[in-house]
Order: sequence, then structure tokens, then C-alpha cells
Amino acid sequence: VTTSNTQALALQEFVQPGHDEFDATSAAAAVLEHLQAGDTGSVRSYFDDLQPADAADILARLDQPHAAQVLALLSIGERAEVFGYLAHSQQAELVAGLRRRDIVALFHEMSADDRADVFNALPEDEQERVLPVLAQAEREDIRRLASYPEGTAGAVMTSEYATLKAELTAREAVEELRRIAPDKETIYNAFIVDETRQVVGVVSLRDLIVARPMTRVAELMETHVITARVEDTAKSAAEKIARYDLNVLPVINGGDRLVGIITADDAMDVAEAESTESFHRVGTVGNLFVSVREASTWLLFQKRVFWLVLLVFGNIFSGAGMAFFEDTIAAHLTLLFFLPLLIGSGGNAGSQSATLMVRALATGDVMLRDWGTMLGREVGVALLLGVVMAAAVSLLGILRGGPEIAIVVSLTMVCVVLVGSLIGMSLPFVLSLLKFDPATASAPLITSIADVVGVLMYFGIATALLPTLAEMAAG
Amino acid sequence: VTTSNTQALALQEFVQPGHDEFDATSAAAAVLEHLQAGDTGSVRSYFDDLQPADAADILARLDQPHAAQVLALLSIGERAEVFGYLAHSQQAELVAGLRRRDIVALFHEMSADDRADVFNALPEDEQERVLPVLAQAEREDIRRLASYPEGTAGAVMTSEYATLKAELTAREAVEELRRIAPDKETIYNAFIVDETRQVVGVVSLRDLIVARPMTRVAELMETHVITARVEDTAKSAAEKIARYDLNVLPVINGGDRLVGIITADDAMDVAEAESTESFHRVGTVGNLFVSVREASTWLLFQKRVFWLVLLVFGNIFSGAGMAFFEDTIAAHLTLLFFLPLLIGSGGNAGSQSATLMVRALATGDVMLRDWGTMLGREVGVALLLGVVMAAAVSLLGILRGGPEIAIVVSLTMVCVVLVGSLIGMSLPFVLSLLKFDPATASAPLITSIADVVGVLMYFGIATALLPTLAEMAAG
Repeated sequence: VTTSNTQALALQEFVQPGHDEFDATSAAAAVLEHLQAGDTGSVRSYFDDLQPADAADILARLDQPHAAQVLALLSIGERAEVFGYLAHSQQAELVAGLRRRDIVALFHEMSADDRADVFNALPEDEQERVLPVLAQAEREDIRRLASYPEGTAGAVMTSEYATLKAELTAREAVEELRRIAPDKETIYNAFIVDETRQVVGVVSLRDLIVARPMTRVAELMETHVITARVEDTAKSAAEKIARYDLNVLPVINGGDRLVGIITADDAMDVAEAESTESFHRVGTVGNLFVSVREASTWLLFQKRVFWLVLLVFGNIFSGAGMAFFEDTIAAHLTLLFFLPLLIGSGGNAGSQSATLMVRALATGDVMLRDWGTMLGREVGVALLLGVVMAAAVSLLGILRGGPEIAIVVSLTMVCVVLVGSLIGMSLPFVLSLLKFDPATASAPLITSIADVVGVLMYFGIATALLPTLAEMAAG
Repeated sequence: VTTSNTQALALQEFVQPGHDEFDATSAAAAVLEHLQAGDTGSVRSYFDDLQPADAADILARLDQPHAAQVLALLSIGERAEVFGYLAHSQQAELVAGLRRRDIVALFHEMSADDRADVFNALPEDEQERVLPVLAQAEREDIRRLASYPEGTAGAVMTSEYATLKAELTAREAVEELRRIAPDKETIYNAFIVDETRQVVGVVSLRDLIVARPMTRVAELMETHVITARVEDTAKSAAEKIARYDLNVLPVINGGDRLVGIITADDAMDVAEAESTESFHRVGTVGNLFVSVREASTWLLFQKRVFWLVLLVFGNIFSGAGMAFFEDTIAAHLTLLFFLPLLIGSGGNAGSQSATLMVRALATGDVMLRDWGTMLGREVGVALLLGVVMAAAVSLLGILRGGPEIAIVVSLTMVCVVLVGSLIGMSLPFVLSLLKFDPATASAPLITSIADVVGVLMYFGIATALLPTLAEMAAG
């Protein structure tokens, strides 16, 4: 009994909602210890006080049997909440271990969009086992929500939105929202739809409450309603929510009918996933849907090998370039000393330009039509950078190789920084024009291209100038 | 009149709130045209229908006199809303052109956090001109909010939060929220504080509305309240809002007293700014606070030159490495053909690993203590990648340089991919440990390091093996 008490105290330590970083790894270790000691009571009371997001983080760190054991300790309401925070793969794993009765209860408690997501994550035979036991409304809802392709607004929306009639008074509207609240994702914004379910207005609960009780909804509603379409990307819908500071974005279908809403917190999840994806793309890693911590060696290999091999081909051209100028190199081996510095600078300047443009295009700060303007300024910035860098290396050039080499190196530096920058700046635009993700213009790609160009320019300039310069020095 | 009508029609075209991408550049051109034609009437009615965010985007594309002219056409309420969406620099510019009376009215209409931000952006003499004419409450509020350092939770919070007494009934609480709503940023969450202003609970308007009217707030409130501290980073506060799906995060001071709230839409702005910042850092561009589109040549030069020059030093080591092995290179010039390919692959593999870790550390997917586990798996992934890449280039090695070169190149490939990956993976952890931003472990930095290591390994292996291999071939 004493041991169990001590352990219970140890568990209590982790209950610090809000203040410090929640340490899910230690918490999971403690939970595991208690489960193995058979002390389910203190695990239960520990989870009682946890935020669902933290509880889900602990479950993610437990193996399937222990995670299922913890889940069974929670009330059905808590279970549904925690479930919504788990990764799809773990959701599917856990559902497979549940009895049909528990699945029905769990699905019933979940919000419509979570329910559709979990359902989508199940293997087909599980889906067939689950579907017949659900209520008809839930079944239809799942079918409808699950039908939208991943990455679209339709796939992230929920069908549990609140609607109001325009002719209601503010008091009646609040009463109506109160009545329907249990089945709605949010009641802070309600939509007014006409007989064809087209959105004609939106009204906030705040405005309804502040208004005089007998004011009609029709007078209170905002009629310029920002909407997304089911086929829009989830990313663009999330951007609208961020741009216009919305709590809720209504989603309409091909017939302009209201079919769902996307909430601000779902938009935040979308934005984070998008940001991770474009971050990975910039690092030439394929789209990694799972946690990096949990990804297998084989999965990581698959996500990385494509770009690595592809970039090798770029580098073969650089190698061929060097082979082409073998005579010049053999005659002036000192040139090799400056090679990494020159082609590196071109690549680095290009990476910088590409980074600025990729981000600016992603946030809408810069549009395709701004290319011309950007290009003009980029020439100025790059020339300035190139001249400064050339000045810096010219001294090194004199010291290591004499004045002739210094001239070749300085001249090359200005050229590679200029050309590298212009390539880095333009590639995101070109990719955008060709409907590719501009983030594909990643540092490694720019570096590979800048390498080839740098090798050719360096040895080209050296081959052209060195004989003349040597003559002048002699003469 | 006909001309003006045609132009008015042209303007109307842009009023498509919500559906398509809003084209602020064309809209600004049209607005400018109307202003110059003296047709302020249609500009006014055009802005009437615009979302504040879109209106601000148009103003951002006008010069100061025209932007001020448009602003003067708006009602004071619209003006304050649009103002909140403008860049700080433009806010300051426009305020400087306003009469004192208009400034007072504008500041009065703005939310407390916007007001403090605008005030902060003003030059000191403007601040002194503005401060005396403000209401005392606003003045104190500005002083307090403006006192928190940039980037902290205190600097992004607003003081306009709603509080409720625990002993109120749900009906009384709704009535109270209705009464105080005009001065509050949000009434969807209200905080219950004790006599020392410590937060003891939070209650949502939804729960108040759904509850039986006579239920006490004390029974309805959630007592596990997630809070941030004024000195926390704005980033960590935004992460809490995203992690726990909050609408509002209360901010407490050193004495644990409630002093402000951060709303979900402010958190989204913080998250986007943070994401841009770390994106730029990865591309070795300094922190660019302004729009890339508007940044001057000189500013961009400044933000880029530091890293470019710094990386040159890394490349000097690579050059020195090549100079050191000059004899080997001179004896086997074919080796140069494979140089870009080998050191490029090391850098690319390292960039991939770094990208995955930087992002995983930023999102909390991976913690510092996971380094060991990650390292073990990375060895597996990198060896797999290295062997595949080595197999790919060995053929090229045989074709270009014969079997001896092929052996050296393949062996080097495995080594550079392995070492590059381990450096790329570890550097973000090391930077984290040293309290630097892990995003500094950018592709260009990794590439520079991998280049040095690659050059040394390649020519080191070649110098060590080629004589022996040549002997074996001869013997």
C-alpha cells in the first residue's frame, strides 16, 4: 500500500496543466508502471485531471494493449475527446481492439469530423464491421464526409453547424441555439440559409446577446459571408480563416448549398500540417504523414532516397563540367582551392533568394505577377552581395594564387552570386507557373543547379582569362 | 458621368468577398484611378462592402497621401478595424498625418492590443503628441501593454477580457456578459478570479446558455485552467492555444494575477510570423520583419550578407582540404569528376536529416532526450541510403575511372552519407542544448560542414587506398 501511495504521488507530479511543458514521455513511463502494478485507480484519477491533448500524448507513447487498458478506464465522453487527438493510425489500431458496443458508444460521442476521420483510418474489413451498428444519421454523415478527397476543405469540415431562420428575434435565436447546442460543433456563429440552403447571412452569438431581444436576425446578420467550397484545398480554407480572423468558415458544395463548417482550431491543425509539409519539401524529404519519432527506418529511407538519387544526377553535370576543364585545372591546381568557396557562395545566395520567395509566395505576400519587379531588385541585391564577397575573397586570392588568380576568383564570385540569386529567385515562380509547389525549389536543388553553373563559369572564366592575364603580367 | 460609371463598374468587379483570391494589386490600381478622377463616392461604397483585411491590403499598396485619403472616407469604426490589419510601419506613417481629434477617435475605437501596437510603432515625438489627448484608462492600458518586451505573451495579449463572479447564476452571468460585451475582445470565455485576481476557473458562454438558468457559475466552470505567463514567449502561448484547441488563453503575471488574454486569431498571427521566421532562418536569411515585397535592396542585402560571408569561411576549409591533397588530385584527375557528386550527396543527406529534426523539435514531436533513440535509427537509415547510392555510382565509377576508382567512390559515398546524416541529425539537438534556435542548422550550414568532411574523406580514402589498389591490380 505504501508503494502504491508513493507511486500515486509521483503521478500527481505530472498534473500541471498549462504552466510548464507537459512531459508525456515521463508521464507515460509512470502510467505504465502503475498499470503493471495493477494500480488502475490512481491512473484513472490521474487522467481525470488531464487535458485531452495531454492524455492523447501519453497514449501515443504506450503500446496497444496498455493504451487500450487506459482508454477503458475513461468515461465514454473523455474517451471520445482523447480519441480525437490521437494519430489516425493509433485510432484504427485501438478501434480494432474494441467491442462493437464500445465502438458504437465511442462513435456516437465523437464530433462528426473526428468520426469520419477515424472511420477513414480503419482497414476496410473493420469499416464493414463498424458501419452496420451505427445510427443511420451517423452512417450517412460518415459516408458523406468520407467521400471528399484528402487535403480538401470537404475532408476537414464538420457537418454539425448551426443554422437560424432570418425571421427569428434575437431572443428566439438564442433560445434556438441553446436547444440545438448539444449536436453542434459551435454555436458562436450561426448561418442563415434560404430555401435552397444557400448561405444568405451569418450572425454571431455575441451580436444576438448584445442586441435588443426583439431585433430580428435578418437585421443583425452580416450578409457578406466568406465561404469555401468543398473542393477547395484545406490549406486555402485555413488561410481564409487566418486572413479574415474567422471563428468558423462555412463550406458550400457545387450547388452553392451549405454542407459544413471548418472551425478555427481545425484550421490551425491544417496550417501546422501544411507548414510541416512545406518545411519537409524544402529539405527534400517526401511528405511524411506520421510523427518523425515514430517513423520506421524503412519509411524514412523511402521518403529520402528519391531526392538524394535525383540530386546525384545534377551533380554528375558538375563533375562533367570539371572533367571538361581538366586541362585548365591541371595547369592551375591552385584554382581548386577556391572551388568550394565559389560554387558554395552561388548555391548559398540562391538558397537565400529561393527561401524568401517560397515563403512570400506561400503567404501571399508576393504574387506571380510581381516576378518582374522582384527580378529587378534581386539584380541590385545580388550585385551588392557579389561585390562585397568578391572584395573579401580577392585578398585571399592574391595571397594563395597571385593577382591573376585573384582577378579570376573575384570576377567569378560576382557572377556566381548574381546568377545563383537569379536562379534561386526565379525557380519558385517558374514552379508556381507550372503548377508545382514552389517549396520544391529547395536549397539542395538550388545548390545542385548553382554547382553546375558555378563550375562552368569558374573554369570558363579561368580558361578565357588566365592566358591573357599571364601574358600581361609577363609583358 | 459615363466614365465614372464605367469605372464604378470596374471597381465593383473586385467585390468578391470569400470566393476567389482577392487581387489587392488590381484593386489598388482601380482605387487609385478613381481617387485621381475625384470619384470618391464609388471608392467609399466599394470599401463599404470590403472585408477589413482586404481593405488593409489595398491601403498597403497605395502611397501615404492616397491611403490617408481613403482612410478619411471610412467611418471611424471601419477605420479602426482596417487599421488593425496594417503593418506597424504604415500605421505609424498614417497616424502621423492625422489630426489629434481623429487620432483620439481612432485610438478609442481600436482594441487594446492593437492600440498598444500602433502606439509602439510611433516615433517618440508622435507618442508624446498622442498620449496627453487619450482617456486616462487608455493611457494606462497602453503604458502597461507597451511595457512587455516584443515576442512575449505580454506583448501580444489584450487587457479586454471578461470576468465573472462564481456565485452568479447562469442567467445572471449571461446578462452580465451582455452588459460588458462592448468593451471586451471576446465574451465566449469568461474567467472567474478570486479576491487576489488569481484565475480559479473559466466558463464558456456556450455552457452558460445551455445550463439551467439558475445553475451557479461555480458549478459550471472548468477549474483546470491552462494559463500562460506574461514573460512566456508569444510562440509558446500560441502553441498552447493550438495544442489544447483553446479560444482564449489567460495570461497571468508574476503574482499569478490575471492581466490579459490571447485570442485564437492572435495566436494564428503569431504562429504564422514564427513559421516565416524559422523558414527564413533555415534559408540563412536574417529575421525579416517586413514584407519581402516591400523590403528595400539595402535591407535585403543586410539580412543576407552575414550568413553568406560566414559560410565562405566554411568553404575555405574545403578549399584547404583540396589543396592539402593536391598531389593525389594531380595524380588522379579523374577523381575530380566524382567530387561534386560525393560531397553533394553528403550535404543533401545531412540537410534532409536536419530538416526532419528541426521541424520535429519545433513541433514538440521529438524532445532533447530522444537524441539517443534518433541517432540509432539514423545510422540504419543512412547506411541503407549510403549503400543504395554507392551501388548507383559504382557503375559510373567503373565506366569513368576503372574498378579502383569505383571502389574508392563507393566507399566514400557510404561514408559521406552516413557522416552527413549524423551531423545533420545531431546539429539541431546540439544547437537546442546550447539554447540556440535549432532552425539555424540550415541546409547551407550543413552543406558547408558536409563539404569539408566530404573532401577530407574522399581524398583521404583515395590517398590511402589507390596505391594499394593499383598494386593489387598490377599484381
